[in-house]
Amino acid sequence: MFESAEVGHKVEKAAYDKEEPGLREALLNAQFDLSAQGKFAVLILIGGVDGAGKGETVNLLNEWMDPRHIRTVAYGDPSDEERERPMMWRFWRSLPPRGQIGVVFGSWYTAPIVDRVLGKSTDIQLGHAIDRILHFERMLSDEGVLILKFWFHLSKKAQKKRLEELESNPHTRWRVTTLDWERFKIYDKFSKISAHALRETSTAHAPWTVVEGSDPRYRSLTVGKILLEAMRKRLKQKAPPKEPTEAPPFVPVVDNLQLLRSLDLTQKLDKKTYEKRLEKYQGELNLASRNRKFRNRSLILLFEGSDAAGKGGAIRRITGALDARQYAVIPVAAPTSEERVQPYLWRFWRHVPRLGRVTIFDRTWYGRVLVERVEKFCAEQDWMRAYSEINEFEEQLVESGAIICKFWLQISEDEQLKRFKLREKTSFKRFKITEEDWRNRKKWNDYEAAVADMVDRTSTEIAPWTLIEAEDKLFGRLKVVKTVAERLEKEL
Amino acid sequence: MFESAEVGHKVEKAAYDKEEPGLREALLNAQFDLSAQGKFAVLILIGGVDGAGKGETVNLLNEWMDPRHIRTVAYGDPSDEERERPMMWRFWRSLPPRGQIGVVFGSWYTAPIVDRVLGKSTDIQLGHAIDRILHFERMLSDEGVLILKFWFHLSKKAQKKRLEELESNPHTRWRVTTLDWERFKIYDKFSKISAHALRETSTAHAPWTVVEGSDPRYRSLTVGKILLEAMRKRLKQKAPPKEPTEAPPFVPVVDNLQLLRSLDLTQKLDKKTYEKRLEKYQGELNLASRNRKFRNRSLILLFEGSDAAGKGGAIRRITGALDARQYAVIPVAAPTSEERVQPYLWRFWRHVPRLGRVTIFDRTWYGRVLVERVEKFCAEQDWMRAYSEINEFEEQLVESGAIICKFWLQISEDEQLKRFKLREKTSFKRFKITEEDWRNRKKWNDYEAAVADMVDRTSTEIAPWTLIEAEDKLFGRLKVVKTVAERLEKEL
Repeated sequence: MFESAEVGHKVEKAAYDKEEPGLREALLNAQFDLSAQGKFAVLILIGGVDGAGKGETVNLLNEWMDPRHIRTVAYGDPSDEERERPMMWRFWRSLPPRGQIGVVFGSWYTAPIVDRVLGKSTDIQLGHAIDRILHFERMLSDEGVLILKFWFHLSKKAQKKRLEELESNPHTRWRVTTLDWERFKIYDKFSKISAHALRETSTAHAPWTVVEGSDPRYRSLTVGKILLEAMRKRLKQKAPPKEPTEAPPFVPVVDNLQLLRSLDLTQKLDKKTYEKRLEKYQGELNLASRNRKFRNRSLILLFEGSDAAGKGGAIRRITGALDARQYAVIPVAAPTSEERVQPYLWRFWRHVPRLGRVTIFDRTWYGRVLVERVEKFCAEQDWMRAYSEINEFEEQLVESGAIICKFWLQISEDEQLKRFKLREKTSFKRFKITEEDWRNRKKWNDYEAAVADMVDRTSTEIAPWTLIEAEDKLFGRLKVVKTVAERLEKEL
Repeated sequence: MFESAEVGHKVEKAAYDKEEPGLREALLNAQFDLSAQGKFAVLILIGGVDGAGKGETVNLLNEWMDPRHIRTVAYGDPSDEERERPMMWRFWRSLPPRGQIGVVFGSWYTAPIVDRVLGKSTDIQLGHAIDRILHFERMLSDEGVLILKFWFHLSKKAQKKRLEELESNPHTRWRVTTLDWERFKIYDKFSKISAHALRETSTAHAPWTVVEGSDPRYRSLTVGKILLEAMRKRLKQKAPPKEPTEAPPFVPVVDNLQLLRSLDLTQKLDKKTYEKRLEKYQGELNLASRNRKFRNRSLILLFEGSDAAGKGGAIRRITGALDARQYAVIPVAAPTSEERVQPYLWRFWRHVPRLGRVTIFDRTWYGRVLVERVEKFCAEQDWMRAYSEINEFEEQLVESGAIICKFWLQISEDEQLKRFKLREKTSFKRFKITEEDWRNRKKWNDYEAAVADMVDRTSTEIAPWTLIEAEDKLFGRLKVVKTVAERLEKEL
């Protein structure tokens, strides 16, 4: 992996001086076009060996281009707000929006590689982390992000020479600490493990470039030229690659509609039984939310269902059992302008709760495979890939301590019509029916197919779907509260 | 202050049951209108004595209304990201957007009152904190936020009775800790200091309501009715109070144009001297940014100037001396949709740097008193009040450790024309001149007056303006870098 970066690449000063001004101007112009087009983000990852010019390169990129449209993020120790969420949360929160360049120093590669080198993790854990990275970068690329990854390398000999030189100069001696020499001792191990990680993660859409770090002029020109070429190539594409590059995904059609249709919607509860049992489960839920063990967990509740299926009512039966200081209800509507320039899942990541907290989503990331699929707001390959992106997202949530319950509230077409008509007469304004509600209703069958596929593909052991027979409001609400209460009891 | 909340207010069950459903429906409808109008935010502050029903009331509001459009925020210990910024940062970051209700539990009143009660602060410090609060709430109100503050009170006798009752019941005994009794011992002091704070901060636009907390039915109806009335009244106003309620502010006209006109724009530097001196000051700047003492400070640089005055060039001479991992450059353009539904300063607060970091604003919060004033994007009373809001903002920044340098880059009309014409020929696309640039140019005199006023009114000892003679680019850039370097040296 690193062989070609140990051959002693060099650029003479004259050659550099000749090439640099043009490169710089071209980069600035490309950056301007990127910003003016506003169609994709550029993400530059900087990794590698200490002393190979990582920091210098980051500074150089900011010097060459317009620093006002570059977001440089250096990840050191996570803050406490970051520690209480999935590892990737901190990276999500600082992704560059479309039209901008993000320079990432100390990226999602640092912890997995360093942990493995120091023996804090196993090969299996490293493999798992690599899988996660592959998924993440695949997703970014599918969302149109141009990813460039640079690894700055120094041969063992060059590394040793560098440390010795720094030490021999009284002005730079302070820069060399015992830690540096300790790190040097594990050079081979570090080299082996990072080579492995790089090989595994050098993909067509997010390739690594290994840059020999000893000659500043060589490494600067190399990075600059690769960046320029990649940006220019992408800028020339008329539209972001909306068309599938591969054959359209094969969608196995199974008769999964039975899943929904076999629900027994006639189930009912009388008011008295409902109230008695609701009190019981709300009590259990309240107790669980104050359980000491819950301080190291979080709870994420997802609500989906057709219009008027009773999501709001079910949510209020949950919040009624909780302390308002502990939960947040996130109604998912049209994305804001800041959300629109980010990858699809960004607007959900920003609401991931800290430990000890509850987040309730009224409509969720499943909008991608429901309304966006049915209304054709996104291309088929985009919602098709959403299934695995979502599973991956939820897996990360669960690994960080979240308990996830997903509810689909099912009513019959007739019941919906009845509720619409009733709502038209009600004095509660929030229940007013809009034109859109009537329009959605006409696509009942399309939604039914989308729901069946969704449940099929995303009901995992760690984050199962619970289908709620919501024809009878009382029955539906109780089943929701009961499911959450029992789930919490089991998990804590 | 608390006398009327110790008389033993009570509401009988029958009366409550009669009133509650109508109130609830009315609140829901008002909440719907609030959300549909989207013209102002409602901010409900909850404070008071322990056991007087604060938490219960927060829960009740969420139960009565639609929790999906309420943001309940409970402020406990600040996170490390919050601790490294001004005290008010955490409150700014969770302000409700227009159309929503924010319920704040443990607000900006908690720390000042508790610190004073525990003897951690002096009367003078409490007074200072109260002034800050008055400014903050005045600003929120001017920005259209409807503020309601509820203080839940229990008489000393009632408080004692409550603790004793809880203790005598084996099921609730655990809720009473020795801390509760210790707090009870300082009841009088707490009461006296909070009464003082409440009196000082009960203003026409943000009045306190003291609610007797012993009877849940009474306190619930009281809060509900006051909230409803306030929302209804505001909802009926056709537009947010854009018209000044008082007489238009008196703007003293001083002949302050000399300030700018007396700048000696003929000052020049030759390339060689420039490069030598630039290197010196960049070196100093770099050294200062790595100074140990800087880890407990932050640096905020503000750049304003007419088009083509050379802000970008000056900024790059600053960033060139810093590590890209340490600074962020924030180009201020049109606000995003999330920024537009918040008070004006919100979009700048979100970029306030942590300790040890540098934030450079390319155009700033002074846009309010420059472009927004000249182009009449905001009403006169809005930009007039901006001066003091800005001073208050900068004071908070400085108190939290920030070093602020503000630069106005001045060129002559002729020089601007020359640069515009030159830019039209350049191959650097980012320098292209737009229609708007030509339009702005026609308002040269208006801008000049606005700048003179701005410098007059906001050049404070803690955050002074530096006027930069930018006619000669080299001279201007050097003065900027020199000013920052010298300022840092002085402060560290």
